[in-house]
Amino acid sequence: MLSNRFQNGMETARLVWSRLPRSEEGDLDGVGLLSTTSNRNCVESLDYEVIENYAYREEQRGKLFVGYNVGMKWFFALLIGIGTGFAAVFINISVENFAGWKFSLTFKIIQKSYLAGCLIYILINLALVFSSVYIITQFAPAAAGSGIPEIKGYLNGIDIPGILLLRTLIGKIFGSIGSVGGGLALGKEGPLVHTGACIASLLGQGGSTKYHISSRWLQGFKSDRDRRDLVTCGCAAGVAAAFRAPVGGVLFALEEVTSWWRSQLMWRVFFTSAIVAVVVRAAMGWCKSGNCGHFGSGGFIIWDISGGQEDYSFEELLPMAVIGVIGGLLGALFNQLTIYVTRWRRNYLHKKGNRVKIYEACLISVITSVISFGLPLLRKCSPCPDSDPASEIECPRAPGMYGNYVNFYCSKEKEYNDLATIFFNTQDDAIRNLFSAKTIHEFSAQSLLAFLVMFYTLAVITFGTAVPAGQFVPGIMIGSTYGRLVGIFTVNHYKKLNIEEGTYALLGAASFLGGSMRMTVSLCVIMVEITNNLKLLPLIMLVLLISKAVGDAFNEGLYEEQARLRGIPLLESRPKYEMRKMTAKEACRNQKVLSLPRVVKVADVVSILQSNKHNGFPVIDHTRNGETLVIGLMLRSHLLVLLQSKIDFQHSPLPCDPRGGSQGIRHNFSEFAKPVSSKGISINDIHLSSDDLEMYIDLAPFLNPSPYVVPEDMSLTKVYNIFRQLGLRHIFVVPRASRMIGVITRKDLLIEEETDSTTMELQSTSVRL
Amino acid sequence: MLSNRFQNGMETARLVWSRLPRSEEGDLDGVGLLSTTSNRNCVESLDYEVIENYAYREEQRGKLFVGYNVGMKWFFALLIGIGTGFAAVFINISVENFAGWKFSLTFKIIQKSYLAGCLIYILINLALVFSSVYIITQFAPAAAGSGIPEIKGYLNGIDIPGILLLRTLIGKIFGSIGSVGGGLALGKEGPLVHTGACIASLLGQGGSTKYHISSRWLQGFKSDRDRRDLVTCGCAAGVAAAFRAPVGGVLFALEEVTSWWRSQLMWRVFFTSAIVAVVVRAAMGWCKSGNCGHFGSGGFIIWDISGGQEDYSFEELLPMAVIGVIGGLLGALFNQLTIYVTRWRRNYLHKKGNRVKIYEACLISVITSVISFGLPLLRKCSPCPDSDPASEIECPRAPGMYGNYVNFYCSKEKEYNDLATIFFNTQDDAIRNLFSAKTIHEFSAQSLLAFLVMFYTLAVITFGTAVPAGQFVPGIMIGSTYGRLVGIFTVNHYKKLNIEEGTYALLGAASFLGGSMRMTVSLCVIMVEITNNLKLLPLIMLVLLISKAVGDAFNEGLYEEQARLRGIPLLESRPKYEMRKMTAKEACRNQKVLSLPRVVKVADVVSILQSNKHNGFPVIDHTRNGETLVIGLMLRSHLLVLLQSKIDFQHSPLPCDPRGGSQGIRHNFSEFAKPVSSKGISINDIHLSSDDLEMYIDLAPFLNPSPYVVPEDMSLTKVYNIFRQLGLRHIFVVPRASRMIGVITRKDLLIEEETDSTTMELQSTSVRL
Repeated sequence: MLSNRFQNGMETARLVWSRLPRSEEGDLDGVGLLSTTSNRNCVESLDYEVIENYAYREEQRGKLFVGYNVGMKWFFALLIGIGTGFAAVFINISVENFAGWKFSLTFKIIQKSYLAGCLIYILINLALVFSSVYIITQFAPAAAGSGIPEIKGYLNGIDIPGILLLRTLIGKIFGSIGSVGGGLALGKEGPLVHTGACIASLLGQGGSTKYHISSRWLQGFKSDRDRRDLVTCGCAAGVAAAFRAPVGGVLFALEEVTSWWRSQLMWRVFFTSAIVAVVVRAAMGWCKSGNCGHFGSGGFIIWDISGGQEDYSFEELLPMAVIGVIGGLLGALFNQLTIYVTRWRRNYLHKKGNRVKIYEACLISVITSVISFGLPLLRKCSPCPDSDPASEIECPRAPGMYGNYVNFYCSKEKEYNDLATIFFNTQDDAIRNLFSAKTIHEFSAQSLLAFLVMFYTLAVITFGTAVPAGQFVPGIMIGSTYGRLVGIFTVNHYKKLNIEEGTYALLGAASFLGGSMRMTVSLCVIMVEITNNLKLLPLIMLVLLISKAVGDAFNEGLYEEQARLRGIPLLESRPKYEMRKMTAKEACRNQKVLSLPRVVKVADVVSILQSNKHNGFPVIDHTRNGETLVIGLMLRSHLLVLLQSKIDFQHSPLPCDPRGGSQGIRHNFSEFAKPVSSKGISINDIHLSSDDLEMYIDLAPFLNPSPYVVPEDMSLTKVYNIFRQLGLRHIFVVPRASRMIGVITRKDLLIEEETDSTTMELQSTSVRL
Repeated sequence: MLSNRFQNGMETARLVWSRLPRSEEGDLDGVGLLSTTSNRNCVESLDYEVIENYAYREEQRGKLFVGYNVGMKWFFALLIGIGTGFAAVFINISVENFAGWKFSLTFKIIQKSYLAGCLIYILINLALVFSSVYIITQFAPAAAGSGIPEIKGYLNGIDIPGILLLRTLIGKIFGSIGSVGGGLALGKEGPLVHTGACIASLLGQGGSTKYHISSRWLQGFKSDRDRRDLVTCGCAAGVAAAFRAPVGGVLFALEEVTSWWRSQLMWRVFFTSAIVAVVVRAAMGWCKSGNCGHFGSGGFIIWDISGGQEDYSFEELLPMAVIGVIGGLLGALFNQLTIYVTRWRRNYLHKKGNRVKIYEACLISVITSVISFGLPLLRKCSPCPDSDPASEIECPRAPGMYGNYVNFYCSKEKEYNDLATIFFNTQDDAIRNLFSAKTIHEFSAQSLLAFLVMFYTLAVITFGTAVPAGQFVPGIMIGSTYGRLVGIFTVNHYKKLNIEEGTYALLGAASFLGGSMRMTVSLCVIMVEITNNLKLLPLIMLVLLISKAVGDAFNEGLYEEQARLRGIPLLESRPKYEMRKMTAKEACRNQKVLSLPRVVKVADVVSILQSNKHNGFPVIDHTRNGETLVIGLMLRSHLLVLLQSKIDFQHSPLPCDPRGGSQGIRHNFSEFAKPVSSKGISINDIHLSSDDLEMYIDLAPFLNPSPYVVPEDMSLTKVYNIFRQLGLRHIFVVPRASRMIGVITRKDLLIEEETDSTTMELQSTSVRL
């Protein structure tokens, strides 16, 4: 239903990327479909370039307009922060309440019968997971998964339809409540990044046009360029809200998600994150008084370990390096296994339709519930440690509360089940227990190993089901388990040192995330922000460096691999080595350039648009001397707007006066703005009479008069750098110039506003550039 | 002496930058001198572009070479980290020992006579400051000031000769020991950034060529492009070492210093910072056992305030916003005053030579000493607060130790002098006292106000003296003083709340730095890293946002203003508004393009090089049809190498075979590398016989065959973006193309290495770009 909307006028073109990719169909911009049966996605490039046509220049209404625009951008940053903060609080309250209610009910029933408790537990989880997968499959297919690869693609310049719609937002929020509350081996942090991006995009277009809740005065930002900034803010807000880590959010957006950055944007993103922090804190303050049920017991720091190990010795560097290596290996293995699982799902399982997706998610839910209930039953209980009156940790914990030392299926009163301590908690609380200090030997090595194997397997098979799923929290779970395992051995080996197993759990978590996601600075800051222990910063850095290096030896990062699997053609920041020896000419060797004349017959436009799927056409004009000149680039989307409105049709094949000002342009610039939520119009939707087809259009006022050009023998490395760093969609390859107009150097770009002081300054200074 | 070396062959060209800067002398690249008498600096642009000439292509010896290069880069990152870490430790140990010895001697003497103590105090300070200013004026003039504007300029693409020399490094290290140890109102953090950059650059060229301590195998990185990466690592290492803030260092380099960034670099910079953290920690661990005299008492966190205020109430947001506003105002005022002071110094004082600079620094040292000794004498002592047995703070502090509650000129035993508590400490300890918690009303409002006024004035007049001087620590001093003032009022007003004055001091420090330096994320992380209190993060963000916004309303950031005063033409990240309505053609309207033919007579080259000071020349060739073609860009520096070596001279005016491979190129690529420590050769240094002058050179193998081009009617905004984001030195402005070779889109840049898996992936996927 939804996906049909994206297929209008598109054939299933199959394009093989070879070492020298070149479209066989003479297809300028590449066309195609992601050929999974259920959600046929078609991706398209975004236009980040400013189209400096006459209409645009007309719009530039002086400095006041610029000031208004800047003000609006800050206002939107504020709104995005508030919106994302509230969304995060809503998700958290719902998850904590569902999970809390589930655990307290289960514990109440197992006082009488373990079998009944197990059944209730399985059924509640099943119901929650079913609600999630039902929402996703029936209502918002684009909301499945974490969404980070798609957002990364969007900010790299690729539009994947559907990822920023209102229905995706709704699906993401309610879907992740179900999937996380239902106890699956996945987290809510990735989906929150996508949620933030959706909120940003929807605010930017002033609401959803489809549901008629858009307001005209909010529609300030219709260009891809402005939307990109908003979505960047939204990403940062999502991370800031998910981890309550405002600085980590900014850095995550900077390091992992965006491909393009400038310092003004950093400041605005920072502001958005600060707003999120304030909103979340205010909500948590309100919840602390008991207004939010089970939610609100934690502080702003999620897993406070500041009471733990204060210092480290150099002897410990070896076991910590081992953690880094394990993290790199297990992380790379995780990435590789998820590739196989995703590919298998796409090629065999999900082809069979939505029903299979629902069965699959429900099956995984039942397996997860059975394992998490059954495994602790097999484990013998341990006696509580000698209670330390100063310690606040109770053993066993009071029933129904969160905490360490869960008494589950134990024969004696003063015993606890260490596996149940991990399994019978929300993931947040399980991690808190794993990170906890002053609980040496709380977990036995066997239990940790059993949990590691089970949970790793569950995380791999859960990855790619049709529910919103983040990989942060499962990654932290896996990492902290083997980290604590290494910690147990280290404690036994270096008995003299003051070592906390919780510290090793933290380092393990960092190492697994580093080995899988391959982030450095942002992950480091996030780990510090969520654990409130700055003293371990150098250790976290070390572990991350090792695990990333080990992981990079095997494969790419999780998000890059997933983006590739989903057919999102990310341009990495570094050009490929082979490009050094290729020239721009070689890269477009087999192209047949389809160009338009300046004044073009409507019938010709229609036939050209129908005959191919290029998104940009060079426009060529003749000077009075008969010389041909490339005068600019015309976008398909703008041509379609012209064809639909018809008001620029003219009877004469002669050009109108290009500098004639407003009489030449009857369009409002905003008509050319691309809507975010649909593919825009297709050539097949436009109906033209035979009279219309005989008329002409002068393209000069509408084309981009100065597309970027490169000489034909420039190396592809340089072309790649221009394309990637300026965020382009089209570059014209032209012959070498026959003459020079001039050379621009730094001096020509230094325009100073003339004030007394600077003039004085600059008269006494002159510079050789 | 030194400065003479930079004037060879340069006339004092005076160039007025008007709104549309255009050189009247037809000077392509701009030429000039910073017209201060004593250090005539001539700045020149850097070549970050890869010159893809045949020599370069020859050098590209396959993937092995690339791998070797990457390995070397990481090895250098390691060396930079170790070097900068040791330099920082050395500076810290020296400063702490000089200062500690000074304070303990003074306190010993004032037990007998206050006058003698005062004299000794003044003399020691004077001796230290004299040593510093003597080193700077006589030996290393480029080491004066903080060096951050110069490094910022370097990474923006402007070479200021002398800033990265070995003598500058030595001057910076020993000069800052003298100036900071001598008690001036300046810090050692800015100079450490410059130190890190110098170490990086010197390592990159394998030592100093002038002093013959360079080793050949280290000379891997001779291009401006590689050096830029190393200097970026060095900057981050400097900040990481100065504040023991590794993440803050990475972000400082990213946000404030560099103009150009990519994600691989981030990882390497992060590694360098981690190495610095490990080195500094190891050194401090060694010092803790008393090996380093007075140094080593502090931990890795400089001002630990984690024992202070844990939480904040919403009522406190108002006084905190007030702190932000004050910070913005005082910061902007500081920037403005330093502009006046610097300009006055340059135009009147420093014209009179080095002797005046020495007198000036000594005078300021005496004034500073008199004020810091005399002001506490005027202040009545306060009685010690009722001692809390749980508190570890002694009152008065034990003599000769660092700490709060200094007993100075007090009549009774149990009294302390609050002004002396600030003045009679190193700045680090004074800040620790100002930040300290659980010391409510230690400082009276009058004392704080007196200190604020005095220190602010001292900081302004000290700024710009000929010693190495950072503004971080003075900024923190000023900010924490008024922050604590606001704190006193808040404590009195909201008596019910649990408020610590130390928290307000911290926020004040953040706000002043934000108001003066206008950084956001990096400052935020640095403040958190040096104070070890993550819970205040949202408050620091808020205060920084306010103070930056207030400051931006008045003037630019400190480093931008100082760069402008020093004639460093920084290109900001955002093009000026006026550029939207200008085209590339207009920007180079008055230029006379000086081009070279492909095969050029040596005599012509010499006369062209002598007649102007352009640094790049277009090379023009003729096709067989007689058509002219712009075939590339020839750099002046490469022409000079060709003229000096003479081995490429030929008798015939016919081109050699350009694709002839090695027989065409008798040069090693490394001969074209620009040395970092001198201006390279000048045309006047090259002696050519009359026979030589009659010969020819074929430029084809040496020119850059694909310089970046823009069409003549591209708006200057777009041209600016290319220039700034790609870090260019020359852009050719050419007429519109007459025909198209092709259009490059994302698809053409997606080159996949053909493995089974990806081919399978990509066959099933195709994409419309």
